[in-house]
Amino acid sequence: MSSRPDPTPLWQARRDSGAGQLDAATVDRIHRWWRAANYLSVGQIYLLDNPLLREPLHRDHVKPRLLGHWGTTPGLNFLYAHLNRVIDERKQPTIYITGPGHGGPGLVANTYLEGTYSETYHDITPDEPGIKRLFRQFSFPGGIPSHVAPETPGSIHEGGELGYALSHAYGAALDNPDLLVFAVVGDGEAETGPLATSWHANKFANPATDGVVLPVLHLNGYKIANPTVLARISHDELESLMVGYGHTPYFFKAGFDDEAPEAYHRRFAELLDEVMDHIAAIKADAAKVGADEVERPRWPMIVFEHPKGWTGPKTIDGKVTEGHWRSHQVPLASARDTDEHLQNLEDWLQSYAAHELFDDAGRLDEDIASLAPEGQLRMGANPHANGGLLKRPLRLPDFRDFAVPVDVPGGATAEATRVLGNWLAEVMRANPHNFRIFGPDETASNRLGGVFDVTPKQWNAAYEPLDEGEPMARVGKVLEMLSEHQCQGWLEGYLLTGRHGMMSSYEAFIHLVDSMFNQHAKWLKVTNDIQWRSPIASLNYLLSSHVWRQDHNGFSHQDPGFIDHVVNKKADIIRVYLPPDANTLLSTWDHLLRTDQYVNVVVAGKQPGPTWLPMDEAILHCTRGLGIWEWAGTEGASAECDVVLACAGDVPTVEVMAAVHLLKENLPELRVRVVNVVDLMRLQDEVEHPHGLSNRDFDGIFTPDKPVIFAYHGYPWLIHRLTYRRTGHDNLHVRGYKEEGTTTTPFDMVMLNDLDRYHLVIDVIDRVPSLGSRAAGLRQRMQDKRFEARAYAVTHGEDIPEVRDWVWSDAGETGTSEGGPNATRVAETGGDNE
Amino acid sequence: MSSRPDPTPLWQARRDSGAGQLDAATVDRIHRWWRAANYLSVGQIYLLDNPLLREPLHRDHVKPRLLGHWGTTPGLNFLYAHLNRVIDERKQPTIYITGPGHGGPGLVANTYLEGTYSETYHDITPDEPGIKRLFRQFSFPGGIPSHVAPETPGSIHEGGELGYALSHAYGAALDNPDLLVFAVVGDGEAETGPLATSWHANKFANPATDGVVLPVLHLNGYKIANPTVLARISHDELESLMVGYGHTPYFFKAGFDDEAPEAYHRRFAELLDEVMDHIAAIKADAAKVGADEVERPRWPMIVFEHPKGWTGPKTIDGKVTEGHWRSHQVPLASARDTDEHLQNLEDWLQSYAAHELFDDAGRLDEDIASLAPEGQLRMGANPHANGGLLKRPLRLPDFRDFAVPVDVPGGATAEATRVLGNWLAEVMRANPHNFRIFGPDETASNRLGGVFDVTPKQWNAAYEPLDEGEPMARVGKVLEMLSEHQCQGWLEGYLLTGRHGMMSSYEAFIHLVDSMFNQHAKWLKVTNDIQWRSPIASLNYLLSSHVWRQDHNGFSHQDPGFIDHVVNKKADIIRVYLPPDANTLLSTWDHLLRTDQYVNVVVAGKQPGPTWLPMDEAILHCTRGLGIWEWAGTEGASAECDVVLACAGDVPTVEVMAAVHLLKENLPELRVRVVNVVDLMRLQDEVEHPHGLSNRDFDGIFTPDKPVIFAYHGYPWLIHRLTYRRTGHDNLHVRGYKEEGTTTTPFDMVMLNDLDRYHLVIDVIDRVPSLGSRAAGLRQRMQDKRFEARAYAVTHGEDIPEVRDWVWSDAGETGTSEGGPNATRVAETGGDNE
Repeated sequence: MSSRPDPTPLWQARRDSGAGQLDAATVDRIHRWWRAANYLSVGQIYLLDNPLLREPLHRDHVKPRLLGHWGTTPGLNFLYAHLNRVIDERKQPTIYITGPGHGGPGLVANTYLEGTYSETYHDITPDEPGIKRLFRQFSFPGGIPSHVAPETPGSIHEGGELGYALSHAYGAALDNPDLLVFAVVGDGEAETGPLATSWHANKFANPATDGVVLPVLHLNGYKIANPTVLARISHDELESLMVGYGHTPYFFKAGFDDEAPEAYHRRFAELLDEVMDHIAAIKADAAKVGADEVERPRWPMIVFEHPKGWTGPKTIDGKVTEGHWRSHQVPLASARDTDEHLQNLEDWLQSYAAHELFDDAGRLDEDIASLAPEGQLRMGANPHANGGLLKRPLRLPDFRDFAVPVDVPGGATAEATRVLGNWLAEVMRANPHNFRIFGPDETASNRLGGVFDVTPKQWNAAYEPLDEGEPMARVGKVLEMLSEHQCQGWLEGYLLTGRHGMMSSYEAFIHLVDSMFNQHAKWLKVTNDIQWRSPIASLNYLLSSHVWRQDHNGFSHQDPGFIDHVVNKKADIIRVYLPPDANTLLSTWDHLLRTDQYVNVVVAGKQPGPTWLPMDEAILHCTRGLGIWEWAGTEGASAECDVVLACAGDVPTVEVMAAVHLLKENLPELRVRVVNVVDLMRLQDEVEHPHGLSNRDFDGIFTPDKPVIFAYHGYPWLIHRLTYRRTGHDNLHVRGYKEEGTTTTPFDMVMLNDLDRYHLVIDVIDRVPSLGSRAAGLRQRMQDKRFEARAYAVTHGEDIPEVRDWVWSDAGETGTSEGGPNATRVAETGGDNE
Repeated sequence: MSSRPDPTPLWQARRDSGAGQLDAATVDRIHRWWRAANYLSVGQIYLLDNPLLREPLHRDHVKPRLLGHWGTTPGLNFLYAHLNRVIDERKQPTIYITGPGHGGPGLVANTYLEGTYSETYHDITPDEPGIKRLFRQFSFPGGIPSHVAPETPGSIHEGGELGYALSHAYGAALDNPDLLVFAVVGDGEAETGPLATSWHANKFANPATDGVVLPVLHLNGYKIANPTVLARISHDELESLMVGYGHTPYFFKAGFDDEAPEAYHRRFAELLDEVMDHIAAIKADAAKVGADEVERPRWPMIVFEHPKGWTGPKTIDGKVTEGHWRSHQVPLASARDTDEHLQNLEDWLQSYAAHELFDDAGRLDEDIASLAPEGQLRMGANPHANGGLLKRPLRLPDFRDFAVPVDVPGGATAEATRVLGNWLAEVMRANPHNFRIFGPDETASNRLGGVFDVTPKQWNAAYEPLDEGEPMARVGKVLEMLSEHQCQGWLEGYLLTGRHGMMSSYEAFIHLVDSMFNQHAKWLKVTNDIQWRSPIASLNYLLSSHVWRQDHNGFSHQDPGFIDHVVNKKADIIRVYLPPDANTLLSTWDHLLRTDQYVNVVVAGKQPGPTWLPMDEAILHCTRGLGIWEWAGTEGASAECDVVLACAGDVPTVEVMAAVHLLKENLPELRVRVVNVVDLMRLQDEVEHPHGLSNRDFDGIFTPDKPVIFAYHGYPWLIHRLTYRRTGHDNLHVRGYKEEGTTTTPFDMVMLNDLDRYHLVIDVIDRVPSLGSRAAGLRQRMQDKRFEARAYAVTHGEDIPEVRDWVWSDAGETGTSEGGPNATRVAETGGDNE
């Protein structure tokens, strides 16, 4: 492990053997570090000037707008101080996940004290001018955010949106057996759904091959304006809850009486030693029993209870403040306004006695500074928290070896995701320690089951005899828990610490993580502008079981809107792909897994469908991102057309091809151009998106003046939105999903949304006026075909054979078929048609 | 309560006093009901014809495409059968929430057996032809969905997306003190975040004034292709978890050995009596102690464990099926293909001995039928599950009484949401039993604290001395838990059972419930087409702490994309409002609270801002939805303009007005039209949305040919999407939020996104070519102003005074100001600026 800076064996019980041995100097050092961190935190929130109170506090020393959060900060500082000792003693690589991310001043303060902040930001020097700049920049225009944002050294977790502290922590710990992930969960955050279920992530961690997550429930009792639920249930219930989550809880409480600091620091230090020794024992046992056999331990966790805003003003204007929600944010928001409030602030700042902590130059006292561990053991300098530093490119097997052979276009039938799964299996074989797949119980259902030939699902809850033969084991590279939040959080944590991975989901339910995607996209956007942050691997989504094939599940499972959601984010972060078949899907993924700093969204069906392009052409098509399928259209050598039929998505592509088929047969003189779009962002203007086509190229492909019928996988208006500035936009007519409800046969479904071949022919007829009355009969026949197809479905419960058995004319009877004649049937081996 | 069909006092311990008394005939009746329900469930999944097996099963009797889910169904049927007895004995109004909603065939079967299905759907008669139609329609084109969809009598919960069974249940129970909400939670669903936290909803229920939620953890061990986490932790851990969640768990397990049906039915009946008696004791205690004093009980819940696919095929093709994930969906998916599989299916069907359950005409045996309670006590007929039946319109106090007085436009400063809160307080006073506000710890932060003068937050976790004076009580009409999922679920459950309510949230984090919104919008869309479903009240969102004012929190708290998400759903469901000030906000809400079957999204700031319109004009403006502000523009009597400045949203309106101000001063000859948009859907074409403006009206307001500079609250492309078909669309230039990052002063923020007054003036200059070189100097000055404003912010940490103190010229110095000179300051009373 590059992260182990010391040859000392890790995960040993404390060598100087335990409780009572902690010398008074160490306890005092911890206390003084804490005071220094608290001082610097308060200073960041309030002070523009006079950073070390060399002169009496004047209102002009106070920021005119006070923005930030005090309440959680002293607790975060307390924990950081104590961790320093433990890390140094045990040489334990550790990262610190700040669930209450609005405690930003605390993490900035601690990384400043340990030196990493000044190493990262050279202008924030370890002296009085540096402290002044440190204070000024906080939550100030042109400065740094108030949260534990990407700007904060040691952070992989901004904590702006609450709920993901533990899922990020477990993601970071996977495949990092020597890493301790210290994860502070606010008691407010603990009320969120994603956090509430993420405690169960301990059933998926392996004590031998993964790192250790040490959760700390930060019980300070209040949210913005309410008590927290977990602070207002009995001790017994809280203990039961943590035991029920699979933990051994250790309780610590301080600050509610006049216990001396040295006493509670000593108590906490001893508790932390006990917890670390407990972890060491688990690790030792795991090493002895072995990764494949070791049973899930009841991992320790800490309940850390203290007054909110601890060490802050007891009361302000006669109102209780310390230990109350009034401490949540800026307790003295009007510090500049009255002498009394200014005095409150000065008293508060003076209570930390900064002159005892910093020397005349404003340098931290050397004895205090010695509490911090050295080098990369400092939590702000741990390379796992700047994962790009540790990232190695994937070894990618040649995807062309997995191509579906295509003699004639559309001549081979394949389940696209199953083909992808077979290649992903080899990706996982070649990259056993830094590539993982996450999904909510849908890896098999989305037909990626090929990966199980290489690696099982990692599962550390109990086993039963029936599990024999199932792809489950105590070590495996696929993680499945029925929580999209947990899967996304795992994946983010894994990527942020320098690894690679992907998530597969039903298309409709990826909306569950809309807001998590938002936060990750924002993280990427900001880190693109932070020089010292090394790029991390892209976050890759495979969305299958998509809107057009919800035969089992219906309307509630239909929603193609994640694409719309995604394209709201910065263009240089976002990529959206709609490969029409298995070969383009392979080529797309080979590309994605080589990229950094993107969110890649791929929508692809799992049902058998035609493979349109031989692999060489598929690669070319994917490289272009979109293109004219000359072999499919009828413009021939003229390279001029009367109408463009465009498509994006696998089902729309089939319908467009079938419509072209009908047009060829019935209106042979009509010159049809077929355009297929894989990379949706190509539609945008080149000034809007780096992948955008130039207007000249766009006009060349879509024509500036011919009608364009666009069959699109998702909500139709997205195509308008992406193209509204294009020359020919007024000629664009989009068919897509319209929230029209549901049906249980595939063709009935496309008919319900007017995306079917017959309707596309009607659309062409209606938009090519030159066809005139020649096409009237065909139009009527198409209308009748729709009625006929609908009537057949309602009578027989399946689609009319001429649609169900349709193949592209060139493919004819000679096409090879991977799936065989039963490929359209539901596979008997359960689970893959949910 | 209209829901109580019987004068017998509810919530009594069992009168014939308990265990051992259950006669054998009742036990047998329960078992035969269960067999009948199971038979009808299997029949729905598989059979097209031969519904009662009058002849040997032939492949043509089997549906060609088998779609549905068997695994969860027998357990759901078992519970329904047993509940019938309990409900009938105790005359206990009860609704049944089916967390595993894909067990649709079970709920259809049970409501058919109890008679409600045939009463609701007259063609599904209680005889053999009816059974045939019942079977055929299931998951069949033109038929019904496979889930417990709106089409299912007695359902308020489709269960398509998992996670909301308990939050819906608790929402339904609120203010329905006599209602039992029986809530089945699948062990798969239990892994989702929203469900995991929703157990804690018991801390908010009042045993006296609310109904009872009886959760059943349906532990059948498997998901689609995996074991479930809760089935694979120890009994002790599971018990601890439930105790930790605040429950008293009752464990039941059956089906894993050869215990006779009468034995396990008797065991479950006795357990259910014990649970019901436990509930009765809690209710009695609550009645004695009183609603204001009663402490949170440890409510019972049931862990119901049995093999997945219980009573289905033990093995298929030699593979274990009952008690395995292979039962999840359609265990015999190839029943038509081989004789052996067809025989498997016939054996399975025959195992229920339908001839003993239905008579020759196909009517349910009368003795079995007698198990069902009568009338509205049947769970399929409970009016709470068709909430519109019980809904009464709100009594709305006159909102005009709460108007901010406006002498001259923009002359009064107000915090819009605070003004709204004062009116909402009176709404709550006038409707004490059927209106609630839900929010994630943000009611005060979003400045709706006025409601606390009328009703406190309902809180049934522990109290501490410091709570004295806080707006918290054991009964109250505001519910706050730090989970948007829980809040949304509560609200949905409350609305679906016939009440009214709203949710307030930070704008950015409403994305947490994107997918829940999807499901609710789909529910509304479908119910619009179901005659027997009575309309329910609209779901109302107030999104505050919006994208433009995240001074404290920054980039992670900026996302105006919920509007984009919402407008993807059917136009007849969706309404989006951006009132520019307090008076229009009041008028908007008065309208919303009178509507049914919509999702209304309102975005409104909480910071002090100008009130533009006196109330009479505000009402008119809101009624129009958008309009020309003649008093603000400079076209005068000519009613012709050179440029249109349009705005939607409070911050964009201020910037547009300030830009107009600058234009008036500097280019007095320029004729500027000001258009303000409150109802965003007015921008769409009238064929796209019922609120859409006709093209003629649109052209009249926005002009067909003049440049339109549109300052918009959210992502700019939404305006393009809504207007791309409009005549003047090519002249439309939109400024909005661009994901550019963050800053901590308001004006710096709008500058970062080019939405500021100076940039709007530049936009005008750049788009009105007739201004020519006349405007060059002004353009340069505007550019310089931006640099100056930026430099000021970075130096002083607040906005340049000429912006901060700007007022609309007409308002001048004489304007009244609700907030006074310090209104822009952070209020000292914590929590309201998060």
